[in-house]
Amino acid sequence: MTTAKRDTYTPETLLTVAVRVFNERGYDGTSMEHLSRAAGISKSSIYHHVAGKEELLRRAVSRALDGLFAILDEPGAVRGRAVERVEYVTRRTVDVLMAEVPYVTLLLRVRGNTKTERWALERRREFDQRVAELLKAAVADGDLRADVDIRLATRLLFGMVNSLVEWYRPQPDGFPGEEQLADTVVQLAFEGMRANGDRGR
Amino acid sequence: MTTAKRDTYTPETLLTVAVRVFNERGYDGTSMEHLSRAAGISKSSIYHHVAGKEELLRRAVSRALDGLFAILDEPGAVRGRAVERVEYVTRRTVDVLMAEVPYVTLLLRVRGNTKTERWALERRREFDQRVAELLKAAVADGDLRADVDIRLATRLLFGMVNSLVEWYRPQPDGFPGEEQLADTVVQLAFEGMRANGDRGR
Repeated sequence: MTTAKRDTYTPETLLTVAVRVFNERGYDGTSMEHLSRAAGISKSSIYHHVAGKEELLRRAVSRALDGLFAILDEPGAVRGRAVERVEYVTRRTVDVLMAEVPYVTLLLRVRGNTKTERWALERRREFDQRVAELLKAAVADGDLRADVDIRLATRLLFGMVNSLVEWYRPQPDGFPGEEQLADTVVQLAFEGMRANGDRGR
Repeated sequence: MTTAKRDTYTPETLLTVAVRVFNERGYDGTSMEHLSRAAGISKSSIYHHVAGKEELLRRAVSRALDGLFAILDEPGAVRGRAVERVEYVTRRTVDVLMAEVPYVTLLLRVRGNTKTERWALERRREFDQRVAELLKAAVADGDLRADVDIRLATRLLFGMVNSLVEWYRPQPDGFPGEEQLADTVVQLAFEGMRANGDRGR
């Protein structure tokens, strides 16, 4: 038990605590009691800020989803050849993931047991679908290989990108190569690991 | 509650039930009571087969780890150029993952709270390290690009491969393209999504 402290939370700072607890215990495994203990304030103080844990989940995954969807409206995502646009979206997805790692982690772990979780899954699918359409257009332009199923390519691309949440943790001073991380992901995903000139053997 | 049924389990069939429950509830969130209910036999019947849930975890992750480590001794992993060997290991890792998806899923979710979990994490790191060494040798041969940190490349490669556990589910009749799945992962990881001849721009 924690001694109750004065409630100086804003919805925003309370969200930071909630997301940490959700990621540690799983959303299903988190009770209002757990949130109250982690925040060091009473349950009724939490209810003063939000209607309940599902509202905290909705706010948290919205933050991740808003960050991701905003990418699709950026100039780099709407102008130019499809292949350049999809590379841009991939690079920026890595940026958003790095900036919002706890929020994206929570989004990726959502399972679909509640209305909010099902809504989040639906929005995620919508984002993946938008990227799949860009990939499809790039294949039609002859810029991406036509011999791989788009659905599978989309899954593997996001598999690589999203795996960052498993190990990437922001450091106060960054880490060597951090600035190049998004570029490296794009290079590996689109150009592969083979050395230049070694393709099509 | 389930009516207790006659205990016709072998350690092997009991493991299948335990792994399903561990993957659904998380290892930490699974009690002997949960296992007893899922198996439809009493807790004492379970203790007749195994010493406890940690033994079930050890058996389950051993199955995944044994499958993965066996790859490293196969002829394709020990003979030929490093790049061919690492592509072979990647392809076979996908095969093992597809064949043992619940076991590999459990292995990938292990967090390190118990001795068995820490041992499993250590073995996983050892496997990744062996693959990283192959990648390093392939870079030294000039077959893989030298401009990407090996540690990062290893993480992204496994990020792509391991993401299969999120969506791949064996079907009784397979699914279209299932036989090519491992080849496709290798192609995308090593050659990238760009169409041939479009590299090094």
